[in-house]
Amino acid sequence: DDIRAFAKELVEKEIERHAADGLGMVDYALASGGAVVVEHSEPYMYPKGTPWYKLKNQNGVHPDAQKMLEPSFGEPGRCFPLKGNNGFVTIILRSPIIPEAVTLEHVAKSVAYDRSSAPKDCRISGWFQGPDAAAAGAQSRQGEKKFLLSEFVYDLDKSNAQTFKVESTDAGIVNMIRLDFASNHGGPHTCIYRLRVHGHEPDSVALSKLES
Amino acid sequence: DDIRAFAKELVEKEIERHAADGLGMVDYALASGGAVVVEHSEPYMYPKGTPWYKLKNQNGVHPDAQKMLEPSFGEPGRCFPLKGNNGFVTIILRSPIIPEAVTLEHVAKSVAYDRSSAPKDCRISGWFQGPDAAAAGAQSRQGEKKFLLSEFVYDLDKSNAQTFKVESTDAGIVNMIRLDFASNHGGPHTCIYRLRVHGHEPDSVALSKLES
Amino acid sequence: DDIRAFAKELVEKEIERHAADGLGMVDYALASGGAVVVEHSEPYMYPKGTPWYKLKNQNGVHPDAQKMLEPSFGEPGRCFPLKGNNGFVTIILRSPIIPEAVTLEHVAKSVAYDRSSAPKDCRISGWFQGPDAAAAGAQSRQGEKKFLLSEFVYDLDKSNAQTFKVESTDAGIVNMIRLDFASNHGGPHTCIYRLRVHGHEPDSVALSKLES
Ligand SMILES: [K+]
Ligand SMILES: [K+]
Ligand SMILES: [K+]
Repeated sequence: DDIRAFAKELVEKEIERHAADGLGMVDYALASGGAVVVEHSEPYMYPKGTPWYKLKNQNGVHPDAQKMLEPSFGEPGRCFPLKGNNGFVTIILRSPIIPEAVTLEHVAKSVAYDRSSAPKDCRISGWFQGPDAAAAGAQSRQGEKKFLLSEFVYDLDKSNAQTFKVESTDAGIVNMIRLDFASNHGGPHTCIYRLRVHGHEPDSVALSKLES
Repeated sequence: DDIRAFAKELVEKEIERHAADGLGMVDYALASGGAVVVEHSEPYMYPKGTPWYKLKNQNGVHPDAQKMLEPSFGEPGRCFPLKGNNGFVTIILRSPIIPEAVTLEHVAKSVAYDRSSAPKDCRISGWFQGPDAAAAGAQSRQGEKKFLLSEFVYDLDKSNAQTFKVESTDAGIVNMIRLDFASNHGGPHTCIYRLRVHGHEPDSVALSKLES
Repeated sequence: DDIRAFAKELVEKEIERHAADGLGMVDYALASGGAVVVEHSEPYMYPKGTPWYKLKNQNGVHPDAQKMLEPSFGEPGRCFPLKGNNGFVTIILRSPIIPEAVTLEHVAKSVAYDRSSAPKDCRISGWFQGPDAAAAGAQSRQGEKKFLLSEFVYDLDKSNAQTFKVESTDAGIVNMIRLDFASNHGGPHTCIYRLRVHGHEPDSVALSKLES
C-alpha cells in the first residue's frame, strides 16, 4: 500500500510538471508572456521561397522568429532555422530579472527526421537595456557591456530540453539575452526550437535604482 | 510483479487522461466544439494598445475572448484579461445539455509570473435560450430566468484546473452559461484562462418539448 | 527501493513518449515537417457556411484539410470532416520513405461528443511519384500503380491512436499515400483527426535509381 501511494503521487507529480510547460519552471523568454525576438543572424530560407529582405519586419526580424519563444509540442519543424552552423539570436525578456538558468530545446530524438541542425557550442549573455533604448528599436548596440551567463554544449544524447545554470552573479538584473552558437551537429543550417530564461524578479527598489 | 503491473496500468491511465484535454471529461464549452463567447464585462487593455471599442466584433465581443474556451497548454498569457477585480462572461454552449459540473482553470503555480489575477469568489448560472434568440445576437436579455448552478471559491493552493459539481437540478436543460466573479486574488485585473462545462445531452423528446 | 526506481523510470519514459508527439515515432506525414494533402473526397460543409467550391485552393483542396496532418491535442473538432460514410484522402509525404506502419487517430472516447463519425473499414495505399509530377500539381493520376500497404478496421474500443504495420514490402520507396475508408461508425459524415506514416529514409543510391 505504501508503494501504491508512492507510485500514485509520483505519477501525478510528474504529469503535473509535464503539463506545466514541460519543466514546471517560470520562463521569462516566453512569447505569450511578452518576450520578443529583436535581432538574429541570417535566417535559412527554403528553396523557392520569398526573399528574406521582403519578409523582414521593421526591426529586421523574420516573422517566424518568435517560434523560438513558443512551445514545440513534440513536433519537428516548430523551430526557426538560421543559415550556416554559427549565428546568434537576441531577445528582450518580458520583464527585468536576476537570471538563474537557461534552457535550450531541440526536437526529441524519437520523432526527429534529422538532428544535424541542432546547435552545439553555445554561449548565453545578458545585460540591462533601459526603457528608452528598449522602446526605440531594441537592437543590441555596440559598446553595451554584455555579461557571460553560461557557456555549454548541447548534447544529443541527453534529454531534448537541456537546462544550464547561470554560474556568475556579475550580470545583476538583465532584460536582454543573447544566444551565440559557434557550431552545430553537422548540418548546413541550424534550427533553434526554443530558448527559455529562468530566474526571479528583483524587488522594486533594486529595479528603480537601475532605471534611474 | 503485481506492483509492476499496477504501476504500468496507473501510468498509462493517468497519461491517457492527461492527453484527453487534461481531465478526460467532455467539455460543451470548448471553442473547437462550437461554443462561443457572446458577452463579457469590460476587457483589460494593455497600455498603448488599440482602443477597445475599435476591436469589438459585431456582437460586442473582443476577438481574443474565445481564448477562454481553448486549451492553455501550460502557458502564462493564454487567457482573456478583464478589467478590475469583478466582472462576467456569458457563453453559448455547443449544444443544449443537462449540466453536471464546471471547471475553472488558471495558469499553474510553477510557471506563473503572478497569480494575483486569478478569479476568487465565483458564481455560475445557466439557462436555456431558444434558437431564435440564440441566432439573433445571443446577448443575455433582461428578464430571462437564470438558474444558479454553482457558487465557489477558486483556491490558489489547489490544482490549477478546479472542477465544481452542479448541486441543483432546477435548471434542467441549458445552452447558456454565465460566470460572474465578485473578487480576485488581489490584482488590478482578472484573467480567465479557461471555463469548461460538463454534463450530458438530453434525449430528443425532452429537447423538442423545450424548443416548442 | 528497486520498485521505486522501476516506477520512476517507467513514469519518465512514458511521459517522454507522450511528450514526443504521443507515440515517439517519426511521422513523415506531419504538416510541420513538410507533408501536404493533395486530394480528398467531397468535404462535409456545416450548414450556412461558404459553399465548398469557393473555398478550394488551386489544387482543389480545402484550406482545413491540413488538419489531418497536425496534432489534435485531445480536442474534439480538430479534424477534417468528409461527406458521407466513405471517401478518401491523398497526401504527399515530406520525403520518400520505405513505409513500415501507419497510424489513424480519432478523438479520445472520454472527451468526444459523438464518435459515429470515426472511419471504420480502411485501406492504405502507397506509391512513388517523380519530382516532376509532384511539382506539377500532385493529384493522383490514373494508371499509376498503387501498392496496398495495409487494410484494417478502426476499433472504437481500443486506444484512440491506432498503429498498423505495413505487411508487404512490394511498394518499395513511396512518397504518396492514400487512405480510402469504405465505412464509418454510423454517422452522416466522417471525421479524420490525423493520419501518420512511419518508416525509414532510403539510402541515396536507392533513391537516385528511382528518380532517374
Ligand atoms: K518552438
Ligand atoms: K486558454
Ligand atoms: K488534427
